[in-house]
Amino acid sequence: MKVNVLTLFPEMFPAVTSSILGKAAEKDILDFSFINIRDFSLDKHKKADDYPFGGGQGMVMMAQPICDALDSVNAKAHRIIYMSPRGKIIDRDIIENLAGEEEFTVLCGHYEGVDQRVIDMYDMEELSIGDYILTGGELAAMVLMDSVARMVPGVLASREAALEESVYSGLLEYPQYTRPREFRGMEVPEVLTGGNHRLVYLWQLEQSLAVTRERRPEMFEEYVKNHGDLAKDEREVLEKFLK
Amino acid sequence: MKVNVLTLFPEMFPAVTSSILGKAAEKDILDFSFINIRDFSLDKHKKADDYPFGGGQGMVMMAQPICDALDSVNAKAHRIIYMSPRGKIIDRDIIENLAGEEEFTVLCGHYEGVDQRVIDMYDMEELSIGDYILTGGELAAMVLMDSVARMVPGVLASREAALEESVYSGLLEYPQYTRPREFRGMEVPEVLTGGNHRLVYLWQLEQSLAVTRERRPEMFEEYVKNHGDLAKDEREVLEKFLK
Repeated sequence: MKVNVLTLFPEMFPAVTSSILGKAAEKDILDFSFINIRDFSLDKHKKADDYPFGGGQGMVMMAQPICDALDSVNAKAHRIIYMSPRGKIIDRDIIENLAGEEEFTVLCGHYEGVDQRVIDMYDMEELSIGDYILTGGELAAMVLMDSVARMVPGVLASREAALEESVYSGLLEYPQYTRPREFRGMEVPEVLTGGNHRLVYLWQLEQSLAVTRERRPEMFEEYVKNHGDLAKDEREVLEKFLK
Repeated sequence: MKVNVLTLFPEMFPAVTSSILGKAAEKDILDFSFINIRDFSLDKHKKADDYPFGGGQGMVMMAQPICDALDSVNAKAHRIIYMSPRGKIIDRDIIENLAGEEEFTVLCGHYEGVDQRVIDMYDMEELSIGDYILTGGELAAMVLMDSVARMVPGVLASREAALEESVYSGLLEYPQYTRPREFRGMEVPEVLTGGNHRLVYLWQLEQSLAVTRERRPEMFEEYVKNHGDLAKDEREVLEKFLK
């Protein structure tokens, strides 16, 4: 998968070029290309922003440097994502869908955003990572790249690993414990060291149900609705939460 | 504001130490301290994770290196946040609340998470940035740090700048345009260059209402409910969307 990233701050991206995604890039599974929008400025001071028409605080990123940067990677041949607080909030469907693309381009906005003509001209999809304001689109782009790239086969140890986890499984994750058995006076729950795999599984299910019902009641309801086919012992665990 | 970040990958953080937050750090408004958890491992290979009790894929971060790292910054004296997909999803209230703290600590998980005893022992708050899985807590921590730090007085040019923007204003942002007036055959909307501030404002309001109603109907409903006190010309703009 090839991802072109257009940004004014390419130096912000070690978070995705190091780490597990960096290793996938070395194996040619991922190919990240960072394009500095400022390099395409025709201004002698390499200016890439200007005052907004109609007044208001802040600066707006100019159309020309962005468009020339987009054209330099032939971005129009693939999907173009603009990270923006106005965008659709990413979820599993959007992420899986993007993970199926061979190539896409991400535009990171800064200041008060980009000239709207760029968004219209290139028919961009606006995406957001959540209802909060960031100082720029770079962190949002990294979150998108990380969540998408880890769904690409070969990036994680097994595709399993990407799918098994909390949230996508419909329940929040149960507590995890590792050695030593006792640490600062706190012991690991006995069931986890007893060696009975079914009991371990049922304990983990119970823990997941408990934390999900407490923190995300809407997610708990959804799980109950979609799991009419539980085994008898699983059903007994679930019943405890349905009284 | 002092933020202690506990991570296995301190090299991932240039996104917050460069950029606008880096400048605030130079002015002593922000003080970021990155603690490498691995430095506290007592293992000769500096191991910081181990197999989960009860089986299952993946590794769990061990309690001892994390606890010693927490103690090294006296983390217990302040709030401790653990970035986790099980956590509460951050919103304006959580962000503003954290922005009022003098100091807090953020723990970044990796692999299958951290030994639950650490979370219990240090009474950590679990926070999430959204319903999607990331390869580690570092990007989530950076998103939290960025969204919180920009609310701290002195970090942005004016506190205004942090508050004025979309999402927190209750409406998504209107389109922005900057020079030149014509670019690749596309013109800036006439009203923006006409010099009538009230007409500009009403056009921007109309654009915000249109994009909010289309993309975030629940946000639009909320806005209508809370804005019974509009001026006559504002009300006329709003009426167009209420038919």
